[in-house]
Amino acid sequence: MSENKKTTIVLFSGDYDKAMAAYIIANGAAAYDHEVTIFHTFWGLNALRKDEHLSVNKGLLEKIFGKMMPRGVDKMGLSKMNYLGMGKKMIKNVMKKHNATSLPDLVDMAQEQDVKLIACTMTMDLLGLKKEELLDHIEYAGVAAYIGDSEDGNITLFI
Amino acid sequence: MSENKKTTIVLFSGDYDKAMAAYIIANGAAAYDHEVTIFHTFWGLNALRKDEHLSVNKGLLEKIFGKMMPRGVDKMGLSKMNYLGMGKKMIKNVMKKHNATSLPDLVDMAQEQDVKLIACTMTMDLLGLKKEELLDHIEYAGVAAYIGDSEDGNITLFI
Amino acid sequence: MSENKKTTIVLFSGDYDKAMAAYIIANGAAAYDHEVTIFHTFWGLNALRKDEHLSVNKGLLEKIFGKMMPRGVDKMGLSKMNYLGMGKKMIKNVMKKHNATSLPDLVDMAQEQDVKLIACTMTMDLLGLKKEELLDHIEYAGVAAYIGDSEDGNITLFI
Repeated sequence: MSENKKTTIVLFSGDYDKAMAAYIIANGAAAYDHEVTIFHTFWGLNALRKDEHLSVNKGLLEKIFGKMMPRGVDKMGLSKMNYLGMGKKMIKNVMKKHNATSLPDLVDMAQEQDVKLIACTMTMDLLGLKKEELLDHIEYAGVAAYIGDSEDGNITLFI
Repeated sequence: MSENKKTTIVLFSGDYDKAMAAYIIANGAAAYDHEVTIFHTFWGLNALRKDEHLSVNKGLLEKIFGKMMPRGVDKMGLSKMNYLGMGKKMIKNVMKKHNATSLPDLVDMAQEQDVKLIACTMTMDLLGLKKEELLDHIEYAGVAAYIGDSEDGNITLFI
Repeated sequence: MSENKKTTIVLFSGDYDKAMAAYIIANGAAAYDHEVTIFHTFWGLNALRKDEHLSVNKGLLEKIFGKMMPRGVDKMGLSKMNYLGMGKKMIKNVMKKHNATSLPDLVDMAQEQDVKLIACTMTMDLLGLKKEELLDHIEYAGVAAYIGDSEDGNITLFI
């Protein structure tokens, strides 16, 4: 077991508010010297997508998933009261008003604080996401790496 | 690290059934002498709202959120099969039939068992919730307090 | 505390994709010699339902719940982009294409690896589910057993 405390988060959800909660906890734990890992799986992978459209070689099903899923955190919707994006717009407005850090900035901050961002390779395959569509400086791993990281952890969450 | 075992729950969800699960686990752990904390953030804050309407001074966006969000656990809907409240009514009926403890009673019981109920101050700001709208005898804190509470914990959950 | 590491998962959700994540993590942890428990509560109980229709003696409300809830993992829908089952069909197609293990097979594999599958008796009562409707070789317990299992655990998740 390492000297540092450890926080390991599985980010399964593709909701804006849940991704925000995950990244706030991750940044908080990193500020308290935890080794922090966010393991992005299923819809949570969308948090790692680049903003722009990239033409990559895909099968039809993968193309459809790629079209329908949001490109990056800023495009995600709320888990509750999204109302076709109006609820999220309201949240973003009050966040600006209260000088709260936006979700894309929380992701940047996590990378600066050396939070380990992992993309689950098995679900990348399922959803047809390619490495070139995802943020730079992230890692790629499967469930075995997740178990290894979290079994000595202090805080283990599934979001 | 304290002598007692510790259970720390982040209650993010504003769903009736998920709040019920959180409070059942919290009361169970407290009965087994765990130090238990429920950290209410985002929609989970609604579990701590008082039943009555209170006129507090708010901006427009905060007023809209205040109107749209449920006042207290009894007003929440189910995460599945809510059907405009019918599913919840069914659940409440079968709970009464089986003499299961209702959600407002589970919250009371948690307070009697000294479960620490914390409202996340950052999301209170975002959703425009004021202290006078929330239950008495709760605590107010941010993510740092959550990390401190849960890093020595035995059971850490995000609900 | 036992010699083995422990992973304890509360499966609350009745979504196909979330149940898949739960069983993938459970099987992964079991492969690394963890003692693994999945505690099925609320909608997560549907993962343990047998495929066939069984006539058991129930009250009206319980009959309605029984009709409306999916019979076993293969009947569940996605948490996102389900589109009346089309999204799930797509996921199942790409899973087949990538030779990914299907959810019913993941449940079988968990049983072969001695993952302890527990049905929460309190919510079985609430939803009107009877033992004869659930898979064989599972255990029945309440929140006290869950606390006992997870308080010495390494990985504790709520899914």
